[in-house]
Amino acid sequence: MIQVGIIGAGRIGRVHIQGILSGVPNAHIRGIAAPHITDEIKTLARSAGTEILTQDFRVLLRDSRIDAVLICSPTSTHADISVEALQAGKHVFCEKPVDLGLVKIQTVIDAAAVSGVKYQVGFNRRFDHNYQALHRAVSSGQVGQVQMVKICSRDSEPPTPKFIPSSGGLFLDMTVHDLDMVRFLSGSEVEEVYAAGSVLVDEAIGRAGDVDTAAVMLRLESGALALIDNSRRAVYGYDQRAEVFGSLGCVSIDNDTPSTAVLSTAGGVISEKPHWFFLERYLPAFQEEVRQFIDAVANDYPVPVGAEDARKATLLAMACTRSARERRPVRMDEFQTM
Amino acid sequence: MIQVGIIGAGRIGRVHIQGILSGVPNAHIRGIAAPHITDEIKTLARSAGTEILTQDFRVLLRDSRIDAVLICSPTSTHADISVEALQAGKHVFCEKPVDLGLVKIQTVIDAAAVSGVKYQVGFNRRFDHNYQALHRAVSSGQVGQVQMVKICSRDSEPPTPKFIPSSGGLFLDMTVHDLDMVRFLSGSEVEEVYAAGSVLVDEAIGRAGDVDTAAVMLRLESGALALIDNSRRAVYGYDQRAEVFGSLGCVSIDNDTPSTAVLSTAGGVISEKPHWFFLERYLPAFQEEVRQFIDAVANDYPVPVGAEDARKATLLAMACTRSARERRPVRMDEFQTM
Amino acid sequence: MIQVGIIGAGRIGRVHIQGILSGVPNAHIRGIAAPHITDEIKTLARSAGTEILTQDFRVLLRDSRIDAVLICSPTSTHADISVEALQAGKHVFCEKPVDLGLVKIQTVIDAAAVSGVKYQVGFNRRFDHNYQALHRAVSSGQVGQVQMVKICSRDSEPPTPKFIPSSGGLFLDMTVHDLDMVRFLSGSEVEEVYAAGSVLVDEAIGRAGDVDTAAVMLRLESGALALIDNSRRAVYGYDQRAEVFGSLGCVSIDNDTPSTAVLSTAGGVISEKPHWFFLERYLPAFQEEVRQFIDAVANDYPVPVGAEDARKATLLAMACTRSARERRPVRMDEFQTM
Amino acid sequence: MIQVGIIGAGRIGRVHIQGILSGVPNAHIRGIAAPHITDEIKTLARSAGTEILTQDFRVLLRDSRIDAVLICSPTSTHADISVEALQAGKHVFCEKPVDLGLVKIQTVIDAAAVSGVKYQVGFNRRFDHNYQALHRAVSSGQVGQVQMVKICSRDSEPPTPKFIPSSGGLFLDMTVHDLDMVRFLSGSEVEEVYAAGSVLVDEAIGRAGDVDTAAVMLRLESGALALIDNSRRAVYGYDQRAEVFGSLGCVSIDNDTPSTAVLSTAGGVISEKPHWFFLERYLPAFQEEVRQFIDAVANDYPVPVGAEDARKATLLAMACTRSARERRPVRMDEFQTM
Repeated sequence: MIQVGIIGAGRIGRVHIQGILSGVPNAHIRGIAAPHITDEIKTLARSAGTEILTQDFRVLLRDSRIDAVLICSPTSTHADISVEALQAGKHVFCEKPVDLGLVKIQTVIDAAAVSGVKYQVGFNRRFDHNYQALHRAVSSGQVGQVQMVKICSRDSEPPTPKFIPSSGGLFLDMTVHDLDMVRFLSGSEVEEVYAAGSVLVDEAIGRAGDVDTAAVMLRLESGALALIDNSRRAVYGYDQRAEVFGSLGCVSIDNDTPSTAVLSTAGGVISEKPHWFFLERYLPAFQEEVRQFIDAVANDYPVPVGAEDARKATLLAMACTRSARERRPVRMDEFQTM
Repeated sequence: MIQVGIIGAGRIGRVHIQGILSGVPNAHIRGIAAPHITDEIKTLARSAGTEILTQDFRVLLRDSRIDAVLICSPTSTHADISVEALQAGKHVFCEKPVDLGLVKIQTVIDAAAVSGVKYQVGFNRRFDHNYQALHRAVSSGQVGQVQMVKICSRDSEPPTPKFIPSSGGLFLDMTVHDLDMVRFLSGSEVEEVYAAGSVLVDEAIGRAGDVDTAAVMLRLESGALALIDNSRRAVYGYDQRAEVFGSLGCVSIDNDTPSTAVLSTAGGVISEKPHWFFLERYLPAFQEEVRQFIDAVANDYPVPVGAEDARKATLLAMACTRSARERRPVRMDEFQTM
Repeated sequence: MIQVGIIGAGRIGRVHIQGILSGVPNAHIRGIAAPHITDEIKTLARSAGTEILTQDFRVLLRDSRIDAVLICSPTSTHADISVEALQAGKHVFCEKPVDLGLVKIQTVIDAAAVSGVKYQVGFNRRFDHNYQALHRAVSSGQVGQVQMVKICSRDSEPPTPKFIPSSGGLFLDMTVHDLDMVRFLSGSEVEEVYAAGSVLVDEAIGRAGDVDTAAVMLRLESGALALIDNSRRAVYGYDQRAEVFGSLGCVSIDNDTPSTAVLSTAGGVISEKPHWFFLERYLPAFQEEVRQFIDAVANDYPVPVGAEDARKATLLAMACTRSARERRPVRMDEFQTM
Repeated sequence: MIQVGIIGAGRIGRVHIQGILSGVPNAHIRGIAAPHITDEIKTLARSAGTEILTQDFRVLLRDSRIDAVLICSPTSTHADISVEALQAGKHVFCEKPVDLGLVKIQTVIDAAAVSGVKYQVGFNRRFDHNYQALHRAVSSGQVGQVQMVKICSRDSEPPTPKFIPSSGGLFLDMTVHDLDMVRFLSGSEVEEVYAAGSVLVDEAIGRAGDVDTAAVMLRLESGALALIDNSRRAVYGYDQRAEVFGSLGCVSIDNDTPSTAVLSTAGGVISEKPHWFFLERYLPAFQEEVRQFIDAVANDYPVPVGAEDARKATLLAMACTRSARERRPVRMDEFQTM
């Protein structure tokens, strides 16, 4: 039984607490640290048989009975808490992104390298049942040599313009998941990116200096090509599809829906829209990534996705940002001296 | 917070314990009664903060802090324990079937009638997301006047021939779910049934006096017709589909699958098979029925499906058995004197 | 090059003329007989290079250069013209039904037996690309031993009540296609039928002595079961689906649609309705049956569907009519003395 | 009745002859010019009642009874014959491409401008039922303001490497259809293209100086973005899909298949592959474009797609070629002085 501390009990922290309770039988939540201990957190703690409730995450880091922590605090604190936790000898699962800047990510990578413990990053989408099936088909050779990867990712609702400045921009906030997915699915690193953005959804996003619609083309080191398209608003729901094409075939995934019901009327044949909210689509994936993290800790397996993956996805997102701004293809070796 | 006792911790009992833990926040499992207290049960009890572990279900019935019990013991004990629990003033959720015989079911109905507490029966399929969507479309009027109901229900694997004698036969064991579904979806009672069975899957089932393949046609009081087809073995998985056709349209549901992945190769376009095991398909439905039971108890709502529904479905299954045996249509009023 | 005479140039006759022109290269339409030679017929004849236009079909039967005739005249004349044509030594393709009564059908069977020429009946649905794919999957053994056949056939619009008396009733007019399909798909004869009908679409149909909604259950000699459901009105279009289930799997066909377009909006995910009109769905099948008839004539192959198939389907439709009227299962051997 | 001359009776010429015969009732094929008058052409001519069979296309241009010609000769002759035909006062339908070079295309545009007759170009895909449905959804406003256009176009088999030098390269030979489709669907002109190619299918194609795999990103003048991906070989068949995303929703089209049959077995759920051959997919579109051409001639309507569309698609394909070669985005105004 792995003893776990949860650092941060906002929306995503509570998702992880609930996920451990219902489906990670070899983990016990020993402590929860949150700036405000709400009634909801107290109830969750009671269900979980949690011993420690604290406003100071360092209480958890100092507790020698805690094996691992899940960092679910605000993005800006991820890297610093990661380093402290690693130095305290705790296995770390850190929510995505580790940081919006490469310098801090590198600090975490370095701390993880010398720590001798596990460090996993929350690229939850890799653990979704559909992407898993896609990855399995590709890695088992069913599509042969990968020639083209296509990812479509559209939010159901745009963020408030206020959020934009702290988001790092669409490519770092949103496309970063798709860039990670290209690496995950293709098994190849990226050689060059070309990105274009447009403001078509909300002019306030444009005034805040960001785009809300984007397309990215990637040349992979393997020779394959990849295409990503993003939008901040799909009125029909959270749209998450992907396709990998290769020498032996093509595998694609479609959206999940609330039911398989199809209604045929004089007005048309109507089926369900995709889920609206990312948590409806990815809730099981949030649980699965923690399950695998706990297994990696318990059995000393390698973690399925680490800090180096976070660094590479961030680098790709930065290259996209640069490409869109300078309207030219950006080679990844421009960043190599970093 | 409703205090719950679980009677019986076999497969389905553990499904309910897990279901309450992960998704029925206003229920606490105060006690578990099981003939053998295994380590698995002890672990579950610890996660759930359960105070009482006993081999004697009457310990739970006597405990005044327990509001409601879930009866998950073997079928042959359902009716007797139901009556005892009702007499002890406990709200009861009883797994399906209440009994294979009408006499005992009537005893339960009578006990429930005088008890002043809730009595819900585990027709889990009514709570499945797909059947719920189907029912919603029908009851909201989207297909107009119902004219035809079709239900296809096929198991992935036949039971062992040993199980047959105690099962009540295919119509009472398997079709009973579909018969309940016809009532649920059509909103109408049944006037007449015509059923045919065949032994096409396993001759040992035939030697045990049962059939493994069946078709049922129903005339409903509303004038609508209904068709059911069953098989004990679909090699591609647990097959659960339905369709309601009416004056304004048609609504149908298809199977759930492990993922939406579709693989196109030189050999064909291949998508996922339906789930193999009924628990993969209906796990959320098992949770949802208990959630609604607890809500009915907590808020004094009527239960969504009661003992009278069990009696009617059992009666329909008996009529099917008689029809198949005597090779003639059987009117439901043949049973009216019972 | 087979020289063809067309007898009757109403809607279906013109469909066949057009079909031969565009896709039966080894047939030449030498003559057309029609009670009224309209301008449309004249234009068609000119395109086809047709030499003879006559109001008297016997002109065609006497013309020694004509090898084969297509009988597209009104139903009541099918049998008599068939016999005359066979006696004149012409190969005959006769539109369905050969007759609504068994006596006349038998006369045609007898005339065909002694004629030494081909006699094909227009069960066009057997030649539809979807039913052909279904049949191919079954006959190649891909579903193993057939255990269940299901056919759903719904018209988009009911006939005018005036048509009912001459139609023979829903089972002879509509279900007859599905009964033929059960034989075609299962490769088995029928042992017993049980049919139920209801008047749910149009009370005038009921007043004319017919039903507009029907369900049929069949026990096949092979032990398999079959289910058919019919409606005179599906508001979403002409609904033609089927499924064959067996020991090794299940194969099903869905409706054709005008396009594969899918529109996702805030209001739902909308795809195309099935075709509305039976000719939109079955036009290629009408051409394909004639192509195979001409090939059978040209190469002295057996015809794919003959007068005996018409007799058996008619017998099954009569058994359905009797079953629905007498509300009892009807064994096919009740008809054996005929 | 429009009198038509066919110039060139190779594969595509014969497709048009057959198409006119079976579905363009207001056209008569008066003459066919072909360098070799084969038996197959003679048979077609007989069916069509064609008066003139000649090896010299100028015989048709000089025949005053011929209203319109279809140019189906080799690509290299399209432009010159177009100009001659226009100068002879014939309405012209010219197979795609008009020419691989802009100079000759301009000559045709100029000749058409002064001719006073119709000039239509064979962008057949615009007339396909699926693309038509897509276009209708977009142009009727169902997806709102267009934000993203995606086109996937993959051949089932690569051309022989010998064909490559005369093809103009993948972008001019294959992508040109998709580039035209982006204009057709978006209703917007293109501002800038970025294209990447790779040799992943056949190294001989690479040695011939071409690519076999490509991706294109386009910025449209409207602010929308577009993505195209191409491959010379999809082992599962001819893959032709598209999607338009906008402020009110998303509309997509999928491949056509030979049937709707779905086979569920222990090995998986298998549906049909797309058609293998472009003529299976686009045969009705080849007929429809000629039908609309003849209607435009008969009623003096504007043609649905003209020489200027050919020029623009060619220009875009040239920009792609340049972009892929120079590895930089290419603005369309680089070409404006031409």
